[in-house]
Amino acid sequence: MEIVIFGATGGIGRALARALQGRGRLWLTGRHEATLFELAETLGAEAEAMDLSDETAVQAFLAEVGSVDRLFYAAGAVFPAPLARTDREAWERTFTANLWGAFLALKHARWGAGARGVFLGAYPQRIAFPGLGAYAASKWALEGLLTAARRELRGVHLMLVRLPAVATNLWAPFGGPPKGAMTPEEAARRILEAVEAEAPPDTLEV
Amino acid sequence: MEIVIFGATGGIGRALARALQGRGRLWLTGRHEATLFELAETLGAEAEAMDLSDETAVQAFLAEVGSVDRLFYAAGAVFPAPLARTDREAWERTFTANLWGAFLALKHARWGAGARGVFLGAYPQRIAFPGLGAYAASKWALEGLLTAARRELRGVHLMLVRLPAVATNLWAPFGGPPKGAMTPEEAARRILEAVEAEAPPDTLEV
Repeated sequence: MEIVIFGATGGIGRALARALQGRGRLWLTGRHEATLFELAETLGAEAEAMDLSDETAVQAFLAEVGSVDRLFYAAGAVFPAPLARTDREAWERTFTANLWGAFLALKHARWGAGARGVFLGAYPQRIAFPGLGAYAASKWALEGLLTAARRELRGVHLMLVRLPAVATNLWAPFGGPPKGAMTPEEAARRILEAVEAEAPPDTLEV
Repeated sequence: MEIVIFGATGGIGRALARALQGRGRLWLTGRHEATLFELAETLGAEAEAMDLSDETAVQAFLAEVGSVDRLFYAAGAVFPAPLARTDREAWERTFTANLWGAFLALKHARWGAGARGVFLGAYPQRIAFPGLGAYAASKWALEGLLTAARRELRGVHLMLVRLPAVATNLWAPFGGPPKGAMTPEEAARRILEAVEAEAPPDTLEV
């Protein structure tokens, strides 16, 4: 089984990678090269550092993987700022991590028979907050993208995961995760349980 | 009353402009210079042609307008293609027209007291179709952007309009609008009726 994880150096991506060790060949990608290769060595996984804005890199990586059985898109970024102080760079970085990379994964993966893809979203009502305009737009966009992708990629199951607060570095700009945030390991456990079910849901609300 | 229309040369934008003649000073923008200036002359409106990817141009235009009372965001684009054949250019053009321009309008408008903004969305279930991945993503993103924008722009009413098929040029790539499509004039009438209500809805489903 060929298993791909985008954003494997983030909290949830890493927890997924660890939980998936031994279930197939792991292909990890992430932005932080040193962290990525250390993780890959520990897990005996393939690894390639990449910038998700680079379509050629993503395409080449997925061509190397070949037929994909499971794909987890766990890359993500947030740069909280009111719209009045959101500049093009922050906007682009948000959309590259949360949406464009997911689009490239959907576009270039060579989906195998019975393949399943998992994409990390958010509860819409939990991100309707001042300072989260670009983030909310990108996460809603991901949901919209999947509605159309499901109609194109017949035979591939695409699961959107709506996550509550999970204790990862995504919370760094807010001074750390809120009290009671779920552990990345628990989030990974819930995600894997759902995606390996006989009939995985289209949307998993964790 | 200062009234701004983005995308004034499109079918709905133009119908809005015509219906708004005489209700205040009209400020029109659009990509198609000749069409835009002809329309502006007919209506006695101010006009500025611009590319919505150009933040400086949008900012300068809205600074010239000054305090805005009504803003209609009617720009839009669709380049139907399966994800596998959607390239960066088509993606960017879709997002510039459907989302980035709306973000710039929200960011740079100098909202007056009691200002109201109108943004054209779509029924999510009607765009969950093969070939509409980028379009669906951008329209869902607009809805998400508004959820956060409403929490920042207190005192400004932001109305999302979910439209059915309207007989505009947006249908050109599909060989024309479907039978029974609403006229742009009827869509404009419904939108203006709702936005001028004492308590406009957050979402208008036409």
